[in-house]
Amino acid sequence: MRQPLDATARGVYTIAATPFTEAGEIDWASVDSLADFYLRCGVDGLTVLGMMGEAPKLGDGEAEELARAFLRRVDGRVPVVVGVSSAGTANLVRLARAATEAGAAGVMIAPPTGLRTESQIVAYFDEVIAELGDIPVVYQDYPQATGAHISAQAFLRIVDAHPSVVMFKHEDCPGLRKLSQLRRSCDGGKRRYVSILVGNGGLYVPQELARGADGVMTGFAYPEMLVAVCRLFAAGRGEEAEDLYDVYLPLVRHEQQPGFGLTVRKEILRRRGAIRCAALRKPGPSLDAEDLRELEALIARLDRRRGERGGRGDERELAVA
Amino acid sequence: MRQPLDATARGVYTIAATPFTEAGEIDWASVDSLADFYLRCGVDGLTVLGMMGEAPKLGDGEAEELARAFLRRVDGRVPVVVGVSSAGTANLVRLARAATEAGAAGVMIAPPTGLRTESQIVAYFDEVIAELGDIPVVYQDYPQATGAHISAQAFLRIVDAHPSVVMFKHEDCPGLRKLSQLRRSCDGGKRRYVSILVGNGGLYVPQELARGADGVMTGFAYPEMLVAVCRLFAAGRGEEAEDLYDVYLPLVRHEQQPGFGLTVRKEILRRRGAIRCAALRKPGPSLDAEDLRELEALIARLDRRRGERGGRGDERELAVA
Amino acid sequence: MRQPLDATARGVYTIAATPFTEAGEIDWASVDSLADFYLRCGVDGLTVLGMMGEAPKLGDGEAEELARAFLRRVDGRVPVVVGVSSAGTANLVRLARAATEAGAAGVMIAPPTGLRTESQIVAYFDEVIAELGDIPVVYQDYPQATGAHISAQAFLRIVDAHPSVVMFKHEDCPGLRKLSQLRRSCDGGKRRYVSILVGNGGLYVPQELARGADGVMTGFAYPEMLVAVCRLFAAGRGEEAEDLYDVYLPLVRHEQQPGFGLTVRKEILRRRGAIRCAALRKPGPSLDAEDLRELEALIARLDRRRGERGGRGDERELAVA
Amino acid sequence: MRQPLDATARGVYTIAATPFTEAGEIDWASVDSLADFYLRCGVDGLTVLGMMGEAPKLGDGEAEELARAFLRRVDGRVPVVVGVSSAGTANLVRLARAATEAGAAGVMIAPPTGLRTESQIVAYFDEVIAELGDIPVVYQDYPQATGAHISAQAFLRIVDAHPSVVMFKHEDCPGLRKLSQLRRSCDGGKRRYVSILVGNGGLYVPQELARGADGVMTGFAYPEMLVAVCRLFAAGRGEEAEDLYDVYLPLVRHEQQPGFGLTVRKEILRRRGAIRCAALRKPGPSLDAEDLRELEALIARLDRRRGERGGRGDERELAVA
Repeated sequence: MRQPLDATARGVYTIAATPFTEAGEIDWASVDSLADFYLRCGVDGLTVLGMMGEAPKLGDGEAEELARAFLRRVDGRVPVVVGVSSAGTANLVRLARAATEAGAAGVMIAPPTGLRTESQIVAYFDEVIAELGDIPVVYQDYPQATGAHISAQAFLRIVDAHPSVVMFKHEDCPGLRKLSQLRRSCDGGKRRYVSILVGNGGLYVPQELARGADGVMTGFAYPEMLVAVCRLFAAGRGEEAEDLYDVYLPLVRHEQQPGFGLTVRKEILRRRGAIRCAALRKPGPSLDAEDLRELEALIARLDRRRGERGGRGDERELAVA
Repeated sequence: MRQPLDATARGVYTIAATPFTEAGEIDWASVDSLADFYLRCGVDGLTVLGMMGEAPKLGDGEAEELARAFLRRVDGRVPVVVGVSSAGTANLVRLARAATEAGAAGVMIAPPTGLRTESQIVAYFDEVIAELGDIPVVYQDYPQATGAHISAQAFLRIVDAHPSVVMFKHEDCPGLRKLSQLRRSCDGGKRRYVSILVGNGGLYVPQELARGADGVMTGFAYPEMLVAVCRLFAAGRGEEAEDLYDVYLPLVRHEQQPGFGLTVRKEILRRRGAIRCAALRKPGPSLDAEDLRELEALIARLDRRRGERGGRGDERELAVA
Repeated sequence: MRQPLDATARGVYTIAATPFTEAGEIDWASVDSLADFYLRCGVDGLTVLGMMGEAPKLGDGEAEELARAFLRRVDGRVPVVVGVSSAGTANLVRLARAATEAGAAGVMIAPPTGLRTESQIVAYFDEVIAELGDIPVVYQDYPQATGAHISAQAFLRIVDAHPSVVMFKHEDCPGLRKLSQLRRSCDGGKRRYVSILVGNGGLYVPQELARGADGVMTGFAYPEMLVAVCRLFAAGRGEEAEDLYDVYLPLVRHEQQPGFGLTVRKEILRRRGAIRCAALRKPGPSLDAEDLRELEALIARLDRRRGERGGRGDERELAVA
Repeated sequence: MRQPLDATARGVYTIAATPFTEAGEIDWASVDSLADFYLRCGVDGLTVLGMMGEAPKLGDGEAEELARAFLRRVDGRVPVVVGVSSAGTANLVRLARAATEAGAAGVMIAPPTGLRTESQIVAYFDEVIAELGDIPVVYQDYPQATGAHISAQAFLRIVDAHPSVVMFKHEDCPGLRKLSQLRRSCDGGKRRYVSILVGNGGLYVPQELARGADGVMTGFAYPEMLVAVCRLFAAGRGEEAEDLYDVYLPLVRHEQQPGFGLTVRKEILRRRGAIRCAALRKPGPSLDAEDLRELEALIARLDRRRGERGGRGDERELAVA
């Protein structure tokens, strides 16, 4: 049933939001509707318990239960990656094993805060992967949040040492050149291929696909656009893909604001019927009247732009075609 | 001749790049052509020696000379703000006085790194402004670079204590709500008005203008677009303004990449004939063949989009109209 | 049984280490022996689940169980404070309530990472304390770890708004002047008294006591020295106190190295029979042969110095006298 | 005249303070008296324009002039290292050449802020050293200030590529293990020897000397103690050295407080007659009445301890013997 993650992974792995009720409890019904929504959008995979999924605010038990709930609902239709980053290796390994047993295709790991040199990062992954066995691993390169900066060169030491590292979640910024370096180094020829999916809220997707990224791993609230963009790119229709992307860019940019953007994202997901309540778990920002008016204006503009593109059809149809 | 900066300042204050030769010397001829270029674009003011102007890489003498060169060429046609931030107050004051004597309309100051609390920031400005006398001051709020975070509330203590602080350069991110708070607090009614110009590479300009920003202070390589956007907004034609802005957004976003983006910006300025050489002074990144292809593709797309908008005319004409 | 924490708290609240087995499991037998050890050293209170207690590496269930185990063993003989800092308020509140029900005297809270301005910190405590009700709270001021910097002035806003905040755990560095400001402001006259205990590994204890600190909250492996120092100070024998302190200062300094120092501390606790195994839970440093030789040399020097002081007796006896 | 710096450098290279008048001007007479003071203390070398020398607050011209003034007064009696770290390579190279021509033995360089990976640091030194030619270079490893973290392994790449890098100024913290790794790797056998001098305010000197450091480069206000400690260590009398060191440790620790400590240091230098005014250039802290009482108490305690050691003589005599 489980679809194991490997280096051939490509397309859109949506970072799943974690839906809460107004009272701050996990909204289990919305977990199901959200999973359904993502699948209807045509995503190629799901990533749950990402930083954008408010994972650090969940209890251990909740986190595991949430992973199971998503896995149950997705039911093997697409691979599910589970974020397991943790300050402690024991917690990380426990969650990774539980998720894998429940059907996760792989786990995503960011270096914990406090690692300062590339050598320390490499040593950390040596230690962790020794305990994970052959569970497929996504390396999350998000130094803006972790403070752990790694060069392409040092990441290759991890690739060479650990066959289970099959994917690089790219969100260093600026990071376009690093992406190119990694793509050339892990080309399936002189070194094994590694899948590269990009994050950063999707802010550079067309440029990153042109540089050889295999897809996108982010939580943008219109995943069908990303799906369509990836498919058009794969079909050699890059200019069309970028035309479509640019229509959504104002919202991509608006959602990409660190911290605040997640509130925007959840509000859009709520308006699209994917979840019932947009609230973040505390502590977290919320949208005031001005924020909402601003968002509504951006959505109205998007709708108008999509209308103008008319004949080219709805991205969701394109995505699921 | 000098146009003194005050709280009525609005529109586009371009952060001027510092042109260098391949050998890393200031390219004085390009300083002139760049100033001319900015003026032709219709900017309302110029800011020289900003962080994006590579100010920290200049010697003291060079910095002063560069400010004079820009001031001479601009010759009072628009106000010129000079960035004077420095680790030492004596250096800051010396440059501020020299710039003011040479005709600068005001100076821009960011808190030096090492200030941690809002109280420390407020105390720092007390100390510095005591020495600057009545030289008009722009507070640069760029915590991503300085590490000095200030709330709207604490900035108001500076406003209330120092009439010479006439402008807030807004580039905290996410910072839209802070902008709104400041706008409401410094509304010219219950408290004196303060001009708010926005930075962050221009990534949120339409939203910021809608929230009451008075203009933009950034170095985007197509300043005429920002000029046109500000004028359309001021004329109550916000939707048109945002339509125009969105055409350029892919490049705004590309240029806004921290560090790398300045290389992109200077290359565009070079291609537009504003400067002769795009090189950054060392240490600094440069564009490789792939970066250049990527940039060319983005420019080609922009040109196509501008062509499609056709009847609406060239932004530069709009700007200077 | 529970001794509720209030602003009269003083003396030494030891930050309890968390003992693990070589395999990384909590060593419950050592929890008991460690609690006994601290009590024999004459400490005035215990703080469990501090950052130095490796709290972030525990699972939720483990954390709660560990707090209960310490509380059970201490059995009301001294107050126990439980560290409950968490990225999510729900987790924080859940642990705070569980700890309080199990007999904790109060909880310690550091602002979560990501709060940047003093206003944000104050707002965070407003939100959290609203949910905690009247559970006594220790504010942990440790900006080196949290990135959340607060001035004395802003902390007073918390003091004035929330009577349940009874203690300030001081470990900003440099922070001596802030300590003095707080002491003067919370003097029990113009404003209610707040207990100030100092951390930073104890590196500045004599100076901090002289400035009005009420005691020490740190995990130094010779707590009896800190107990004796506090008592001598309280008895007006400050010079003697500092003489005693200085004998241990080489080890205080050695243990205070961020990260590495905890490994040293646990090794000393092991050698003193307080715990069975000095290992940190992964990821974490360990001592190599050279580190051990170095530590042994420092301990030998300490023993010699204590011997030379001879007639003044053993600190433990002094402490428990 | 110039004593060129090479890997045989050892002993105490004092980081020279920069004396200012109350008005914030460089106090040139105190530059001379301070140089004389350091020489009387028996230091083996001087480092001027270090971060602790308030170098970032000097103008370019002042910096060069200050270096010349120290060089003139020292007049070749000991080697003088000049700190030349700068955001811009051109400024760095200009100062390095001027200092070398004026007789400096070498230059000290810390990576500029903004370098994130070890690869970037290595590339930066490649670029800079290519311009410096054979000017001897000290690598300053002070990540707490620069944010540039480097492992022993990556530093060895610099050592292997650049024969002009002759010294490693060690002040990573915790950094004892890195020091040992470097010592073993640069042992003069399998790889050329590199001199290692330690900083961090001298807080770990005995441990660092025991691990193979060649000396100390810090600005502690009693340099004669460090000189005596280094000589005793070199003479195989490590325990005596540490006994002496421990007498001063309370003040070493007090002076080592980041930022604040420099104020303490200059006040001690003033009291010792080395400079006329203890003021830091703005912005910077100053000592209030409580700070002064505290410092006086610490100095009185030191004098008493030195008196008790009696027969062992004055450190300055020991140092210059």
